[in-house]
Amino acid sequence: MLHRVASRLQGRALLSSSAARVFSSLPAEVEEAFSNAASSPAPFSHTPAGRNHLYVPGPVNIHESVLRAMHVPGQNHRDPWFADFYKKCLSDLKMIFGTTDGTTIIFPGTGTGGWESALTNTLSPGDKVVTFRYGLFSHLWIDMMQRLGLDVTVIEGRWGDGAYEDKLAEVLKADADKKIKAVCVVHNETTTGVTSDIPEVRKTMDSFNHPALLLVDGVSSIGALDFQFDQWRVDVAVTGSQKALSIPTGLAMVCASDKALAAMKTATSRRVYYDFADMLRTNPSGNVPYTPILPLLYGMEQSLALMREEGGMAAVAARHHRLAEGCRAAVEGWGLQTLCREPRWKSDSLTVIEVPQGVDSQKVVDVAYAKYNLSLGIGLADVKGKVFRIGHLGNMDELMLSSALCGAEMALLDAGVALTPGSGVARAIDYWRKTSRVIPTRETLLQ
Amino acid sequence: MLHRVASRLQGRALLSSSAARVFSSLPAEVEEAFSNAASSPAPFSHTPAGRNHLYVPGPVNIHESVLRAMHVPGQNHRDPWFADFYKKCLSDLKMIFGTTDGTTIIFPGTGTGGWESALTNTLSPGDKVVTFRYGLFSHLWIDMMQRLGLDVTVIEGRWGDGAYEDKLAEVLKADADKKIKAVCVVHNETTTGVTSDIPEVRKTMDSFNHPALLLVDGVSSIGALDFQFDQWRVDVAVTGSQKALSIPTGLAMVCASDKALAAMKTATSRRVYYDFADMLRTNPSGNVPYTPILPLLYGMEQSLALMREEGGMAAVAARHHRLAEGCRAAVEGWGLQTLCREPRWKSDSLTVIEVPQGVDSQKVVDVAYAKYNLSLGIGLADVKGKVFRIGHLGNMDELMLSSALCGAEMALLDAGVALTPGSGVARAIDYWRKTSRVIPTRETLLQ
Amino acid sequence: MLHRVASRLQGRALLSSSAARVFSSLPAEVEEAFSNAASSPAPFSHTPAGRNHLYVPGPVNIHESVLRAMHVPGQNHRDPWFADFYKKCLSDLKMIFGTTDGTTIIFPGTGTGGWESALTNTLSPGDKVVTFRYGLFSHLWIDMMQRLGLDVTVIEGRWGDGAYEDKLAEVLKADADKKIKAVCVVHNETTTGVTSDIPEVRKTMDSFNHPALLLVDGVSSIGALDFQFDQWRVDVAVTGSQKALSIPTGLAMVCASDKALAAMKTATSRRVYYDFADMLRTNPSGNVPYTPILPLLYGMEQSLALMREEGGMAAVAARHHRLAEGCRAAVEGWGLQTLCREPRWKSDSLTVIEVPQGVDSQKVVDVAYAKYNLSLGIGLADVKGKVFRIGHLGNMDELMLSSALCGAEMALLDAGVALTPGSGVARAIDYWRKTSRVIPTRETLLQ
Amino acid sequence: MLHRVASRLQGRALLSSSAARVFSSLPAEVEEAFSNAASSPAPFSHTPAGRNHLYVPGPVNIHESVLRAMHVPGQNHRDPWFADFYKKCLSDLKMIFGTTDGTTIIFPGTGTGGWESALTNTLSPGDKVVTFRYGLFSHLWIDMMQRLGLDVTVIEGRWGDGAYEDKLAEVLKADADKKIKAVCVVHNETTTGVTSDIPEVRKTMDSFNHPALLLVDGVSSIGALDFQFDQWRVDVAVTGSQKALSIPTGLAMVCASDKALAAMKTATSRRVYYDFADMLRTNPSGNVPYTPILPLLYGMEQSLALMREEGGMAAVAARHHRLAEGCRAAVEGWGLQTLCREPRWKSDSLTVIEVPQGVDSQKVVDVAYAKYNLSLGIGLADVKGKVFRIGHLGNMDELMLSSALCGAEMALLDAGVALTPGSGVARAIDYWRKTSRVIPTRETLLQ
Repeated sequence: MLHRVASRLQGRALLSSSAARVFSSLPAEVEEAFSNAASSPAPFSHTPAGRNHLYVPGPVNIHESVLRAMHVPGQNHRDPWFADFYKKCLSDLKMIFGTTDGTTIIFPGTGTGGWESALTNTLSPGDKVVTFRYGLFSHLWIDMMQRLGLDVTVIEGRWGDGAYEDKLAEVLKADADKKIKAVCVVHNETTTGVTSDIPEVRKTMDSFNHPALLLVDGVSSIGALDFQFDQWRVDVAVTGSQKALSIPTGLAMVCASDKALAAMKTATSRRVYYDFADMLRTNPSGNVPYTPILPLLYGMEQSLALMREEGGMAAVAARHHRLAEGCRAAVEGWGLQTLCREPRWKSDSLTVIEVPQGVDSQKVVDVAYAKYNLSLGIGLADVKGKVFRIGHLGNMDELMLSSALCGAEMALLDAGVALTPGSGVARAIDYWRKTSRVIPTRETLLQ
Repeated sequence: MLHRVASRLQGRALLSSSAARVFSSLPAEVEEAFSNAASSPAPFSHTPAGRNHLYVPGPVNIHESVLRAMHVPGQNHRDPWFADFYKKCLSDLKMIFGTTDGTTIIFPGTGTGGWESALTNTLSPGDKVVTFRYGLFSHLWIDMMQRLGLDVTVIEGRWGDGAYEDKLAEVLKADADKKIKAVCVVHNETTTGVTSDIPEVRKTMDSFNHPALLLVDGVSSIGALDFQFDQWRVDVAVTGSQKALSIPTGLAMVCASDKALAAMKTATSRRVYYDFADMLRTNPSGNVPYTPILPLLYGMEQSLALMREEGGMAAVAARHHRLAEGCRAAVEGWGLQTLCREPRWKSDSLTVIEVPQGVDSQKVVDVAYAKYNLSLGIGLADVKGKVFRIGHLGNMDELMLSSALCGAEMALLDAGVALTPGSGVARAIDYWRKTSRVIPTRETLLQ
Repeated sequence: MLHRVASRLQGRALLSSSAARVFSSLPAEVEEAFSNAASSPAPFSHTPAGRNHLYVPGPVNIHESVLRAMHVPGQNHRDPWFADFYKKCLSDLKMIFGTTDGTTIIFPGTGTGGWESALTNTLSPGDKVVTFRYGLFSHLWIDMMQRLGLDVTVIEGRWGDGAYEDKLAEVLKADADKKIKAVCVVHNETTTGVTSDIPEVRKTMDSFNHPALLLVDGVSSIGALDFQFDQWRVDVAVTGSQKALSIPTGLAMVCASDKALAAMKTATSRRVYYDFADMLRTNPSGNVPYTPILPLLYGMEQSLALMREEGGMAAVAARHHRLAEGCRAAVEGWGLQTLCREPRWKSDSLTVIEVPQGVDSQKVVDVAYAKYNLSLGIGLADVKGKVFRIGHLGNMDELMLSSALCGAEMALLDAGVALTPGSGVARAIDYWRKTSRVIPTRETLLQ
Repeated sequence: MLHRVASRLQGRALLSSSAARVFSSLPAEVEEAFSNAASSPAPFSHTPAGRNHLYVPGPVNIHESVLRAMHVPGQNHRDPWFADFYKKCLSDLKMIFGTTDGTTIIFPGTGTGGWESALTNTLSPGDKVVTFRYGLFSHLWIDMMQRLGLDVTVIEGRWGDGAYEDKLAEVLKADADKKIKAVCVVHNETTTGVTSDIPEVRKTMDSFNHPALLLVDGVSSIGALDFQFDQWRVDVAVTGSQKALSIPTGLAMVCASDKALAAMKTATSRRVYYDFADMLRTNPSGNVPYTPILPLLYGMEQSLALMREEGGMAAVAARHHRLAEGCRAAVEGWGLQTLCREPRWKSDSLTVIEVPQGVDSQKVVDVAYAKYNLSLGIGLADVKGKVFRIGHLGNMDELMLSSALCGAEMALLDAGVALTPGSGVARAIDYWRKTSRVIPTRETLLQ
């Protein structure tokens, strides 16, 4: 690479007088500087001034203090400090699940791995489970259940709807022998912007005194939305680090009830990597069965600390609701509608917006990226081309989201959607102005 | 600190089973995690979710690639790689000054230091200089001139106006003996959002064949606005790293003409730290008279590389103009006006907005910070309470600036200014949508 | 937390004059500064000056340029740039496996997950496999095989020995029907510092024309030691990111032969997360079945770039050999011996050193950490208390390793081992001085 | 640059199937990954594995927690949090000066700027000062004094000696009229490794009841060595951020006595940038006269916090002494000697080592850099070619310094100095082992 640098420089006669040392090697950061330094005007700008405006529903924008916390050049998890630290990680994590009774477990992996752990640790091949399909992620979880040999009853739903409690009631009612071992629900369907009503699901199960386990995918809800593991008597809940926790992908976080842990003892699904048992054996003494991802744990701790400082999960969920309400007001202002029609199911994690017929939503996403360096979520699978998605979960505030609304509005116009410029963002900021609270400790500024 | 941690933890009975190693020391990042982890809900949120929205006219938002480039754990500037690197730094810097003939010099210091170097290297105590006062920075530079013993003729101007060429003409005309040694102009007055017209100033000087040096403060213009050191025959131009270059404070960058370097030989102002001579003696061989700030140089190189990739200074200046036009459209939409009335002087680096009579602009700034974590520029000195400032120079794009407009709009409303919500930002995004170009290399997405 | 800060500050009468704004909230980094700033002398130093000297055999020291590359505030892997980038990642990775024909796959996970993928994608419950137990990691892999329902023949070996080819020959010879489906070998046993001879294992298999698959755990060898996937006809090889690649834990990298991919079609082990099939379906177009860990991929690319610049895997392996030879010379100098006795098996990734009888090796590790901030590897399982380990794989050079030798020497003396001070490190630096090459491009310095 | 990337990739047929989006632009970090990825084996390694071993006497190795603290994307120093923060900075800084009565001031600049501030704020052109020349830095300060118009009496000394108190006594004795306004002393001469005895200098001045100010350059001593501003009645002391404080260059820190501040009122040296007066006017309310370098202030606060945790300046100075004693033992072991002969003057900040006659010390430095990636200090000016320097100030520990000793030993041998390998480092580690204390809070590990 220095060859290239040297010849480039020589073209500019920079090096003529320093022959002897011209090939002395450069430290990395200097070489980087050299290598970025094309002397002729580049025909493109791959890193525009400003920033990449990231508003997909995960991965999300990492808080600068979290980014700092993860910047560590290497540590040994067998040094004596680790045990207390790891026990604290597991304990701190309980807040976002809304649990004191549950057992938290952290796997190096993704939400998909969390799903696998939930199923294989509690169920055996051939076991009956019932679940819903109303989006790509619920579909993929069903696919996993089937590949793991479970006997899956799928309640099909409109993409844009949530878990139908009445249809679940029918299924449970028909299960007189209580053969169904688990009810599996995707809490927040990231494809459609729908938050199902887990308390109602629980109530439905209870109305039949059904002993099935309640397994919940909380990948894009836990840490953002209200979640009450203990109160709702969830048995296994799953989330991933790159969503509401706002750190990079790589941690699958799971919370298991005592009932789930009991089920583990008879569940014959083969499992090793995602086996709870190895974790349960080692975690209480602050150990792990295989190498943990330390930087992500540091990031997780800082992210949880920020949530505590914000006032805990109630305050975090309230912020998500406020952000989402502003976003939904903007959608109304545009004269568009969300894919989710039912108010009680509208997600506070992300908003999925239908484009008018005749418009390809991919074009909205493409123009947003091409002209405004804005990353929006595309329409996936059944709703491909029909919707685009704005993520507003995790590390997010009003002014960030106002950027996304401005960009989406411009992109919609560019894509041919007839809108009055400003019609959406005006509604959002009007709502936010009236509802945003003063940042605690800054009250004195306004007195 | 561990005492505190330990007691906090003990309260939660976390450590009961690990007595032997409980006091083993923790690595820094773990301790940080512990120390951020107040176990009781904090009564405030000092680091709200999202980000600090920084829109003052310097320091500005640092591009993430620049931030990365500066993250270096220590280097020796006497190692053999340094000489070529530093020569490249000095050469690369010429782009933002618009020079091939000028000599660039980098001091560890601030723009204030750059001012001092411009004056002390070219002038002697008692020398006559003429300059303008139309804002706080032009005032401070005058103060420096006086303290350095110069004989200063000040042309007073309205705060909000630029350099009056007609009044300069009067002064120069009266100087029949050509005793005036320098004309000093603040190119972009950061207090008022005014960009003076250096080519016209030059033309005025030329019309009298006046031999005075032309010294220009380009702190908030160079690297953002069109600047033609050679063509305008500027003699010393000064800028600072935390403005358009978008790196932290700490580098005072200067460009000197041959005429300025000739003046240096007779200038008797005492100078050591800010003496050009030590730099001119050592720089050509890639040396420096005292320790350079390496991380900032790495950041500067990356920042300049981004500008080259964007298409060079013409493209950078065009972006600043587009951003500023959008901002000014928003101000019009609000029914307010900029402090600068004269169209040719309106700054593309920042916009200074007058609030209606009866409103304290400090309140706008305070509420923006208290409710929306938005940092706006306050009104300074003569315009304290009357204006607030939105910086849009350096590392900035449309969606970032749209955040600031949304936040400013909310804050204005909160401060009691009667506005139609959305009236400003709608104008800006309408303008930007029509004028923003596709990011180069992303054209194929739109085909 | 500000409460605490405030009261601490008040004790020092700092805040007396700024009552109105004392509770204004602080940006994160300022608060960190405050919270680290205990005003009374702390009774301990949890983060000693200098650095944590990390010499365990993984996680290893991350190169500063790799650390920089990973410092990214969030990115969307569904943006259009990702596909080409990911295809490049998969392609670049081939270098460390020594393959052109193999198919590389990257899982978010650890080496343990890589093991699981190797077994479940190629084998069915009940399948016969043969393997060796000569350390903790080979033991754990056997445990996994058994839990996955494989029928495992274990060749037991001394901890400190490698794969016994003669015993393997016996087993294969007895398998007249070729029922054995796989031979599984841990290439480099991290517990004992032993590198088994894969080419000899392959030769042994070939001598019986045995069709079994050859599955290799290369977690602590691949990227550090010579590895020839194609030439040795390995079928699945596994490594992890926190070892020779010198990035944080979180990527399980796998390379599969066409024969392995064919076996996949009939292998009935249940698998979803670690299924090759989902990767093979999506990777060729640059897609992934679930969210990738972007920062680690950026780090991986930078780490591989460093290896290419060093001269490729041959140069990297030569460096590891040179480092290891110096370390072994030091052990000889101390009058101690490595746990591995057989010269052809001595590992170039790490050195495992036996302490004299009567000394507890844990004490060596403890004193190293307590007095010198040096992290050494402890003795695990069967060799607990008998050995300590010095990791020298990945991002490592002579002077770093000399630190570890100096620290180990001091810790050995502190732990009561009779040594002549300097007797080990002297041998190492004598060897290194004579064998270290000049860093390329710095040759001119020595002319 | 993408052109280059594309053609490089095309040569490897990577992109054949992804025509449509191949030119979509890449985020910065991906482009960096691409640009580092030369597809052909590079003929050199500019960033060797491991690390740059930095042992010059400044800039020094930055502690990882300090590096993290500085990684901030931009902040506004006019936001309300700043005032308290800055007052805390000024207060915290007093520790390293050993003062409670002095006034601390921080300039954006270097130690050279600190020198200038010390002289111009207390003296007038024509004022008589007396000082010593015994190295390059004392020489450069003299040069500055002369250029500022002071009437300088220079006591010449051997390079390797410190301040001669007896010769100072002669000069002061001869100054019956007390015309000498200041005695200026470089406390630690970084060229020669000599620490002058400021208490003895003070005693000498006192013995004549001489009213001259005592101005001290503590650039490479303050924060590393014992310094008692109040007790020694120093009037102005100066240091810089890239030395003992172990952050990047860019802060000139000054401490002034009341006597110095009184002298300021009559000192007529022209000064603006480095004028104490602007600082004294603004600092008490937490303001600054021009833009501060925020990242360096965050780094400074973290660095001071580390020192406090270590036990304060007494513990820090004790560590420096222990490190230096080990280094000097190594020099003895090599059969070489330090440039400084007088025991009481031997510096604990750095060690300057004479090479045997016939050997060029530059060769030692060059080979260290070329073969071992080790940065040593070169011999400067009068001792060029005769000495090399090992810096051990600031963020440093025993094992780090042992690396430097090993590298220096190898480089000495390579350069032709006859040594017994290991003869130096053995002495150092023997000393350190016997004197190093257990890191506080890790004591329990050794019980």
